[in-house]
Amino acid sequence: MAYFEGVGKINYEGPESKNPLAFKYYNPDEIVMGKTMKDQLRFAMSYWHTFTYMGNDPFGVGTMFRPWDNAECPMEVAKARVHAAFEFMEKAQIPFFCFHDRDIAPEGKDLAETNARLDEIVAVIKEEMARTGIKCLWGTTNAFSNPRFVHGAGTSCNATVFAYAAAQIKKAMEVTKELGGENYVFWGGREGYETLLNTDTGLELDNLARLLKMACDYAEEIGFTGQFLIEPKPKEPTKHQYDTDAATVLSFLRKYNLIDKFKLNIEANHATLAMHTFQHELNQSRINGVLGSVDANQGDLNLGWDTDQFPTNIYDTTLAMYEILLAGGFTKGGLNFDSKVRRASFEEIDLFYAYIAGMDAFARGLKVAAKLIEDKVFENFISNRYASYKEGIGKDIVEGKVGFKELEAYAMKNGITPNVSGRQELLESILNQYILETK
Amino acid sequence: MAYFEGVGKINYEGPESKNPLAFKYYNPDEIVMGKTMKDQLRFAMSYWHTFTYMGNDPFGVGTMFRPWDNAECPMEVAKARVHAAFEFMEKAQIPFFCFHDRDIAPEGKDLAETNARLDEIVAVIKEEMARTGIKCLWGTTNAFSNPRFVHGAGTSCNATVFAYAAAQIKKAMEVTKELGGENYVFWGGREGYETLLNTDTGLELDNLARLLKMACDYAEEIGFTGQFLIEPKPKEPTKHQYDTDAATVLSFLRKYNLIDKFKLNIEANHATLAMHTFQHELNQSRINGVLGSVDANQGDLNLGWDTDQFPTNIYDTTLAMYEILLAGGFTKGGLNFDSKVRRASFEEIDLFYAYIAGMDAFARGLKVAAKLIEDKVFENFISNRYASYKEGIGKDIVEGKVGFKELEAYAMKNGITPNVSGRQELLESILNQYILETK
Amino acid sequence: MAYFEGVGKINYEGPESKNPLAFKYYNPDEIVMGKTMKDQLRFAMSYWHTFTYMGNDPFGVGTMFRPWDNAECPMEVAKARVHAAFEFMEKAQIPFFCFHDRDIAPEGKDLAETNARLDEIVAVIKEEMARTGIKCLWGTTNAFSNPRFVHGAGTSCNATVFAYAAAQIKKAMEVTKELGGENYVFWGGREGYETLLNTDTGLELDNLARLLKMACDYAEEIGFTGQFLIEPKPKEPTKHQYDTDAATVLSFLRKYNLIDKFKLNIEANHATLAMHTFQHELNQSRINGVLGSVDANQGDLNLGWDTDQFPTNIYDTTLAMYEILLAGGFTKGGLNFDSKVRRASFEEIDLFYAYIAGMDAFARGLKVAAKLIEDKVFENFISNRYASYKEGIGKDIVEGKVGFKELEAYAMKNGITPNVSGRQELLESILNQYILETK
Amino acid sequence: MAYFEGVGKINYEGPESKNPLAFKYYNPDEIVMGKTMKDQLRFAMSYWHTFTYMGNDPFGVGTMFRPWDNAECPMEVAKARVHAAFEFMEKAQIPFFCFHDRDIAPEGKDLAETNARLDEIVAVIKEEMARTGIKCLWGTTNAFSNPRFVHGAGTSCNATVFAYAAAQIKKAMEVTKELGGENYVFWGGREGYETLLNTDTGLELDNLARLLKMACDYAEEIGFTGQFLIEPKPKEPTKHQYDTDAATVLSFLRKYNLIDKFKLNIEANHATLAMHTFQHELNQSRINGVLGSVDANQGDLNLGWDTDQFPTNIYDTTLAMYEILLAGGFTKGGLNFDSKVRRASFEEIDLFYAYIAGMDAFARGLKVAAKLIEDKVFENFISNRYASYKEGIGKDIVEGKVGFKELEAYAMKNGITPNVSGRQELLESILNQYILETK
Ligand SMILES: [Co+2]
Ligand SMILES: [Co+2]
Ligand SMILES: [Co+2]
Ligand SMILES: [Co+2]
Ligand SMILES: [Co+2]
Ligand SMILES: [Co+2]
Ligand SMILES: [Co+2]
Ligand SMILES: [Co+2]
Repeated sequence: MAYFEGVGKINYEGPESKNPLAFKYYNPDEIVMGKTMKDQLRFAMSYWHTFTYMGNDPFGVGTMFRPWDNAECPMEVAKARVHAAFEFMEKAQIPFFCFHDRDIAPEGKDLAETNARLDEIVAVIKEEMARTGIKCLWGTTNAFSNPRFVHGAGTSCNATVFAYAAAQIKKAMEVTKELGGENYVFWGGREGYETLLNTDTGLELDNLARLLKMACDYAEEIGFTGQFLIEPKPKEPTKHQYDTDAATVLSFLRKYNLIDKFKLNIEANHATLAMHTFQHELNQSRINGVLGSVDANQGDLNLGWDTDQFPTNIYDTTLAMYEILLAGGFTKGGLNFDSKVRRASFEEIDLFYAYIAGMDAFARGLKVAAKLIEDKVFENFISNRYASYKEGIGKDIVEGKVGFKELEAYAMKNGITPNVSGRQELLESILNQYILETK
Repeated sequence: MAYFEGVGKINYEGPESKNPLAFKYYNPDEIVMGKTMKDQLRFAMSYWHTFTYMGNDPFGVGTMFRPWDNAECPMEVAKARVHAAFEFMEKAQIPFFCFHDRDIAPEGKDLAETNARLDEIVAVIKEEMARTGIKCLWGTTNAFSNPRFVHGAGTSCNATVFAYAAAQIKKAMEVTKELGGENYVFWGGREGYETLLNTDTGLELDNLARLLKMACDYAEEIGFTGQFLIEPKPKEPTKHQYDTDAATVLSFLRKYNLIDKFKLNIEANHATLAMHTFQHELNQSRINGVLGSVDANQGDLNLGWDTDQFPTNIYDTTLAMYEILLAGGFTKGGLNFDSKVRRASFEEIDLFYAYIAGMDAFARGLKVAAKLIEDKVFENFISNRYASYKEGIGKDIVEGKVGFKELEAYAMKNGITPNVSGRQELLESILNQYILETK
Repeated sequence: MAYFEGVGKINYEGPESKNPLAFKYYNPDEIVMGKTMKDQLRFAMSYWHTFTYMGNDPFGVGTMFRPWDNAECPMEVAKARVHAAFEFMEKAQIPFFCFHDRDIAPEGKDLAETNARLDEIVAVIKEEMARTGIKCLWGTTNAFSNPRFVHGAGTSCNATVFAYAAAQIKKAMEVTKELGGENYVFWGGREGYETLLNTDTGLELDNLARLLKMACDYAEEIGFTGQFLIEPKPKEPTKHQYDTDAATVLSFLRKYNLIDKFKLNIEANHATLAMHTFQHELNQSRINGVLGSVDANQGDLNLGWDTDQFPTNIYDTTLAMYEILLAGGFTKGGLNFDSKVRRASFEEIDLFYAYIAGMDAFARGLKVAAKLIEDKVFENFISNRYASYKEGIGKDIVEGKVGFKELEAYAMKNGITPNVSGRQELLESILNQYILETK
Repeated sequence: MAYFEGVGKINYEGPESKNPLAFKYYNPDEIVMGKTMKDQLRFAMSYWHTFTYMGNDPFGVGTMFRPWDNAECPMEVAKARVHAAFEFMEKAQIPFFCFHDRDIAPEGKDLAETNARLDEIVAVIKEEMARTGIKCLWGTTNAFSNPRFVHGAGTSCNATVFAYAAAQIKKAMEVTKELGGENYVFWGGREGYETLLNTDTGLELDNLARLLKMACDYAEEIGFTGQFLIEPKPKEPTKHQYDTDAATVLSFLRKYNLIDKFKLNIEANHATLAMHTFQHELNQSRINGVLGSVDANQGDLNLGWDTDQFPTNIYDTTLAMYEILLAGGFTKGGLNFDSKVRRASFEEIDLFYAYIAGMDAFARGLKVAAKLIEDKVFENFISNRYASYKEGIGKDIVEGKVGFKELEAYAMKNGITPNVSGRQELLESILNQYILETK
């Protein structure tokens, strides 16, 4: 049974196409910097936003037309969703998916039944994976929606909730392994605080580290070799999320000696909620060697919540791909569309329009970024700009050969070499030209 | 010669006083939690905002009436400022001051003359310190105002500017030692970036670490035993300041093995620019053992720049003192008013009104915080809230005795103990009662 | 049947009381500025946040324990809620309530049934009102939660939705009249836009004006004499809400000649979402003669969404009451707690703690504001500050007797009289003293 | 004497050019929508940011190399700036300039001397205008930098300052007339407040209206036929600027019956400081018939102050030109680059790079916008979306033929016609394609 009957496979038709159901820039097999676009971009569908989000918001109920949800019993809905999801991914040429445990199967009356339900759906997913060749980019745990997590999961003040969360992660990790997931993500849904008046931040952060340590131990025990990823976010749902931004997570990982076990899953909208640019968070991840994977979406800087819009801003996609390529490209990670159609885009067809919009925006961004790197546009500029550290006193500084006394002597004798303009406006203009003219 | 002729010593007159030139809450010798208010609060005057800020802003020139600036030559002005500053501190009962090298003495034609000028003024300051008993809380370097630092100091792309900055810090550290400064502060004025298009963030951060390492070495060499402090700020003057917030600085210090050598100087307005509360930054510093000193001021959350207003919000002063007291109170640090009178408060007398406002706000905050701690208001609540980690499965978690398998077994068998309300509204109401009723 | 069995009437016990279920500052019959506190403050309960909000948020389902919701059929729940609500208001001494049509009765299969259900519940409410003496402050329409309003109600692109909204408002206005509601509120739930790419803002705003004009006509027709109020909000749920802030609504009302028919309902959290202070919005309403009523709550300026927290900040309550008293106090309006307990405050008892927190904060604010006005603290300062407009050239300016030529002649001859400090720090310090010392 | 010796006239070389001193998109004589690009865009140079801004910021002094400032006496500097400015405009092909009175001539010892200095420089400017054919887009008054305006100009608490401001505006208006300025701009530099504790907002706003009324009277008296423009801004330098945004200014103009005399000068960065998009402010101006002129620049939404960067974001320039074209294009207004080079772009050549960046970005934006309009991309979509208002019940609503009773009857009988998706993602994707593919 087909759920998207009126839609066939989305094909690449090129920049001149007026067909709304075609790619204008995403040409899966085209080679860019030595790999196919498909392999460079490693697009993934987010199961939650695409197949369980109904359009509800704090001021209104769901709006989405989702015929596959019409089955009466929750497990039948869950199975129908699997089939709809794989039909959608096939047609939209999306090679990966990402999921939370609770996206794919509804909770049962207790943890045992919940786990059994998960197994039942996992079997269906595996069939579909085998049939289509679509793979699992990553799995994760939803330890934030259920009321039991009202005070957090690993940072709950209630130790039995910590235990429950641990049990849930254990199972989700097993399921991710079963599905061949290449990564496992930790996003700290309710790991944060609402008010410091009732919170022991020290204990909560220690406990969070304990939980992650247990996860590392268990992965080793069961031979799960996927990459562990932490996804930073500064606020929402809690007032303060502990995994605020890349720097905060790095501080945490270093403090608790977890830095070798984890990389980061950088989300564009979470970056902007933290008052950083998307590129900034990718750049910081890159220079610290922890750029693992990316949640591709975009926020609205005039709005203060996580809008998770489909990414269409070409500057963002270009500069994101620029950092990713500089980091050597994806290995286990990919571009997961942690993006949802607007509440007013409630028709099934909008799912295709939205993914096409995002995939085309990243495809174009990839090509522009590759051209910028091939032409060494910014790299040469930067190399010249910092040339003073490659010789003389600069080289001595970098090599640790001088201290305050030597530098004072140098400054007393030589003063400074004149500074040169940073050329920001020229560089922005060149970036525009690359964006507009790259073919 | 007196510069504030119409004003005598500001005395404590109590909460009922209608005298605008009297303290209503700051009673220096009153004992609070085992120490005098004076010793608990360790108030310091910021030399820059109080004695060199003229009221200019991006849209207008200075407005301040500062008669001591009337001398013709810059060094005479500098000396007059010293006398005015100490007269002011004496009258306002401020026991400490903080300064940048360039606040106290103007630059000369080259570094040698600049350093000589600094020495000349330092001698005058030492006389005044001896006369009055006022001490130096901390010194620092202004390596951001001069055009040579347009691209940064320790993070400049120009190695000769790095050398110049090192020479400047060397001298400022010597001067701080000479003045008996109890701390030395690093605020990264232009250590950040304007655009990633022209910036090598990796090299810049490595260089910043190199500079700090050299500072540690030199301190050891000359026997400077003051505490090194880094002051986080997220933006302004640069688009992105590397020392973004407490977490970012901690990540940096841990990465470069500098964590044992530095503590933090937390500024209220920098906290809010980073979208944190002042209390949050103090709390994070406390639980990481790096709460060194405080820049006392307040920002305006509707404005996006560093307004550095005098702190008058009683919630902020209470919760700040609460964290400081929980951390054991100040040792070397103190409350430096990194605060400036509004551009429209341009009369000399406004300096007194402003410091009285800030000192009274913190004095009241201290008393409320002390009462909250004595009554264990929040501590008891928190202790009960996390009681599940003191026995049974919770204790096993904390002590590392269990892993995922044991916790899954526990959760399967026991489910969860019901959660209890976090009581935020009740706690906020109790806080109000303490603020309003503490005597 | 009692739903809050363990709780009796909340009484005033004064500032020293340690009883969490007592008022410390709200003393209903105490006279402040010539009226009882009860009559000055005119507290109202919000039906939605107090009796229908279940604690769901974008990342989780409801958490609230609400035993009155246990009935099986929706109409039985609705009736139980009425009884619970009036029991709550009686015990908490809240003299008014506010409601949306859809808060009190669930929708039926069509508009006719929906209206009939509304009538059935209204009858129950009227009984309870008669029994308790509690009154209706205002009613309103929920024309935003149902999917039919996905593109707006009065600003929908779908004319049949406009018609439906009109029908709904008609009925809600009738019901409000039936319940003796003293005001009727228009909050433009989804009256705004998501993207300008698909929006005809000109037509939408014209239509919104048409809808309000119809409302005025119908009120006249049925003799509804309650005050019409518009409640500004800048964003959420839509990206841009047309009724952005007080100034925007005033511009709209003036453009469409509706300025004589409407006043404003100012919400604290909506003010801060618009980057204004609560006091600013009240002040602008006051000087334009449109301060109608107030939605009492508070936001979190570090968060970018409408948190609708219970108001506990004493500065906000003081300065709000200051503007309200300067405007002559409430006539038809009041202080509606458009506030919800935090998701983690999920016990029934938290409703009492939260209302006590808010009522006490406003009671104290009222007393401080009254004292500030009685002592003419700010009024005298302001009167002196602007004295130059009461005589000479200033008087001529105000009376329209001079133009550019006369003023140029004046300036050429006289230059300017020196400016005087604005004394912001002193005034803030005095405000603190009043807040802390008012008894 | 030439100040930009190494630079010749900037010519159009097309999108493939690698010459940094050439236009890639701005082809002055190319016809777009029936006019030359030059006449559609009406680019203007801002005298202040381009020829008096020295690169100072709150944390540092000026950095700019500006050899024409080397003259010793201020009037010689002023004259040299005129020659440098016209050389620059000629070479960069900028047909207009905008100025504040105090940009072009320094203040003298009193108003009479100041005015005489202004006249002296105006004569020089007129010569250069005659020589080059460059015109004046608009003039304005700087009534915010001098300390006399510390409390405002038209909203000062000091009536003699009001008089002084009136005299200054009188002269600036005369000078603008003398120079053939097509508009006169009012930007309320310090017209706002710092704290409500010392401010009579009612009197201040009344006075501001009085000042504008006098300006209207005087313009009529001297026959100045330029368009009066008000430029909204929400904050900075004051905490709250009275001319907050387009809606606030419209409310003010309507309240004081000034709506027929003024249009708006919309600045991109001021829009974003007010939490609106640039397009939003232009759209609101358009639908209210007050889109007068534009200050072309861009802000940084992660920063909270007016960065006034050169506009390079192609989305912003496209959507701005889209609104401007829909409004019928510029008549008296134009695109004034109220933009400054970054402090680190301190070389003279950066002025060219920056203007080229901005002019090219707007030229491309113009072409994309024109193509979108020619193809009726969004117009057709919108026309269909609102089709229900062109017939039946929708037409009756628009024509005022129905009220609540008729609409209730309609809704009871017909319910609603199903809603259709808003298609935001598809529209964003189409916009991308137009931006990238328009030639
Ligand atoms: Co994500
Ligand atoms: Co997100
Ligand atoms: Co500071
Ligand atoms: Co600061
Ligand atoms: Co409200
Ligand atoms: Co609200
Ligand atoms: Co402007
Ligand atoms: Co600006």
